[in-house]
Amino acid sequence: MKNYLLTPGPTPIPPKILEILAEPIIHHRTPQFRKILKEATEDLKYTFQTKSDVFIFSSSGTGAMEAAVANLLSPNDTVITIEAGKFGERWTEICKAYKINTEVIKVEGGRSVEPEMIESKIKAQDSKFKAVFTTLCETSTGTTHNIKAIGELLKDTDTVLVTDAVSGLGVIPLETDNWSCDVVVAGSQKGLMLPPGLSFISVSQKAWNLIKDSKSPKYYFDLSKAKKASDKTDTPFTPAISLVIALRESLKMIREEGLEKRFERYKKMAEAVKRAVTSIGLELFAEKNCQSDAITAIKVPENIDGEKLVKTMREKYGIWVAEGQAELKGKIFRIAHMGYIREKDIIRCLSVLEKVLHSLGYKFKRGETIKVARAILK
Amino acid sequence: MKNYLLTPGPTPIPPKILEILAEPIIHHRTPQFRKILKEATEDLKYTFQTKSDVFIFSSSGTGAMEAAVANLLSPNDTVITIEAGKFGERWTEICKAYKINTEVIKVEGGRSVEPEMIESKIKAQDSKFKAVFTTLCETSTGTTHNIKAIGELLKDTDTVLVTDAVSGLGVIPLETDNWSCDVVVAGSQKGLMLPPGLSFISVSQKAWNLIKDSKSPKYYFDLSKAKKASDKTDTPFTPAISLVIALRESLKMIREEGLEKRFERYKKMAEAVKRAVTSIGLELFAEKNCQSDAITAIKVPENIDGEKLVKTMREKYGIWVAEGQAELKGKIFRIAHMGYIREKDIIRCLSVLEKVLHSLGYKFKRGETIKVARAILK
Repeated sequence: MKNYLLTPGPTPIPPKILEILAEPIIHHRTPQFRKILKEATEDLKYTFQTKSDVFIFSSSGTGAMEAAVANLLSPNDTVITIEAGKFGERWTEICKAYKINTEVIKVEGGRSVEPEMIESKIKAQDSKFKAVFTTLCETSTGTTHNIKAIGELLKDTDTVLVTDAVSGLGVIPLETDNWSCDVVVAGSQKGLMLPPGLSFISVSQKAWNLIKDSKSPKYYFDLSKAKKASDKTDTPFTPAISLVIALRESLKMIREEGLEKRFERYKKMAEAVKRAVTSIGLELFAEKNCQSDAITAIKVPENIDGEKLVKTMREKYGIWVAEGQAELKGKIFRIAHMGYIREKDIIRCLSVLEKVLHSLGYKFKRGETIKVARAILK
Repeated sequence: MKNYLLTPGPTPIPPKILEILAEPIIHHRTPQFRKILKEATEDLKYTFQTKSDVFIFSSSGTGAMEAAVANLLSPNDTVITIEAGKFGERWTEICKAYKINTEVIKVEGGRSVEPEMIESKIKAQDSKFKAVFTTLCETSTGTTHNIKAIGELLKDTDTVLVTDAVSGLGVIPLETDNWSCDVVVAGSQKGLMLPPGLSFISVSQKAWNLIKDSKSPKYYFDLSKAKKASDKTDTPFTPAISLVIALRESLKMIREEGLEKRFERYKKMAEAVKRAVTSIGLELFAEKNCQSDAITAIKVPENIDGEKLVKTMREKYGIWVAEGQAELKGKIFRIAHMGYIREKDIIRCLSVLEKVLHSLGYKFKRGETIKVARAILK
């Protein structure tokens, strides 16, 4: 059975990239590899929409998140974290591991943060917030925060804006420089169409000013080491060579298509999925004003076994969608439309979703999702 | 031009593994991947020769080194590090980054540590050493420390033995349990015949006792998180899926051949290289009693340009050997015989080495290295 991944990381890998991964390996301390590293770094800047430094780590996205905390802050610093799901909570957990005082703005699952909630804290007389930690696309709930508005709030303050774009980069708009995002972290296995194993981090001048005062311990994720090596087109430690070579290719594909076109394409797919599933009475988990175009979180209808739904789609039909995580397990399921996903994959997914929902006893007009999606995707 | 890597990481990747890297990716939170993770972890234990826990990180070997320091120790703890080259020095650097008091035993390049030097420190009245940090194979100089003797010294003390086996595991003997190695770290791109991007760490019960008291910050490399996930055949963060699938295959290859047979094979290749190069008057950098069977460091003869030697071998003949690092640059070159290296590669390398040495004006009896090596490898 052929498998179709519509999971929010890993996402499918283009055949051209798979071929590159099968090529004999080369050594990294050579002109051959330095050329590749240089091109990949340049195209990362295009994808991040930044002129600042962007570094590559061999780690999952969480490694780059830890790099942000360990490099920007010192024990007893105070920060704001925005929690609207599992990945927002991760910022809080990392900060706590580093003994950072964390003021949590908790937002109900399915909602996004009101920038005013941050503004009131930042503008308070005794405000001493070194950083605000946000999430571009909260994959666990299918929501997106208004990063642009938060950047606007912080840009003329001393507070640094840190954004987890692991599951949004290259899929939905994120203008690192224009939106005053000081640190953006991302990973390889979502919008960038690669296997997991690489993470990325961009660092603005304002962020460097904080970094030089940081007293938290770090070594592998030390941004100053990364910068020093990068200035010589090198990495401080052996990079994941084959993944970096593949990265150069995937970024080239992104650049060739153009970010604007990609964002439009994903927006259309998101709209198709959202309208299709609601047309048969399913409900979206995220509220209207903050639904992500990278992933759609759908409530499992009453009296339907959500875990069985996902398992049957995967094991009987080869369509891999994601369950809910933690307390949302069994309550939602999630269809990702990020990375190397095409319109046909969406149609195939909806068609299988209908089959399995029907087999589980859900009542709806058969064929409706396909009709609705096709009208949008044509 | 076909390239032959005889570099100490990355090493060549078997065709069977390259094919696996080109397969469509699967999702990691599934029974399919859990089975792979379980098998890989079991075979890692075989390769480490341990019954203790072994965990997989997505990072280079240095990440696992940092994991050892951050998990075992707290600020102001005191440890011993053995420095006989670049990788021993790395232990000291990481410890210093974590504010650990570090008593350095410095050994001249090309030599190994005398276990008595450790013994006198450990047995001193006021000794408070939490750990001793060692290197199985000091790749930068081609030497190996007597880990077995150091383990013997420490096994009935409260001091934990930590060994960097990044460039020795699966190539030269290391009996984690029998030698009382509490923590062993390794990487994917050397003896294990994979691209870089994975690191490994084994943890003994004695080490866990230290870990529970550690106050250093950690998150991505938190061993307690790794243990909790591992108990459910899972990983705390998205693993480098394709590399883990490839790991399962490479470990299967190692297990099928058997560690003993592999060690013998590499020993023979090491002997062939060492005897061949000395037969034409070249000198080995490492002293006789501590030469590594994983890599041979050779002094660049007087009046020969070492950088040009390595560059010509690579660019004119496709034979990639390594230069010296840091202060040894231009003074030594290094031929690795680890990972997916066969006798033919050794002969090919020696043949090109002769050609290039000759072209650079070095005087010797042509064909001698091949004759000597063939007699040993036959």
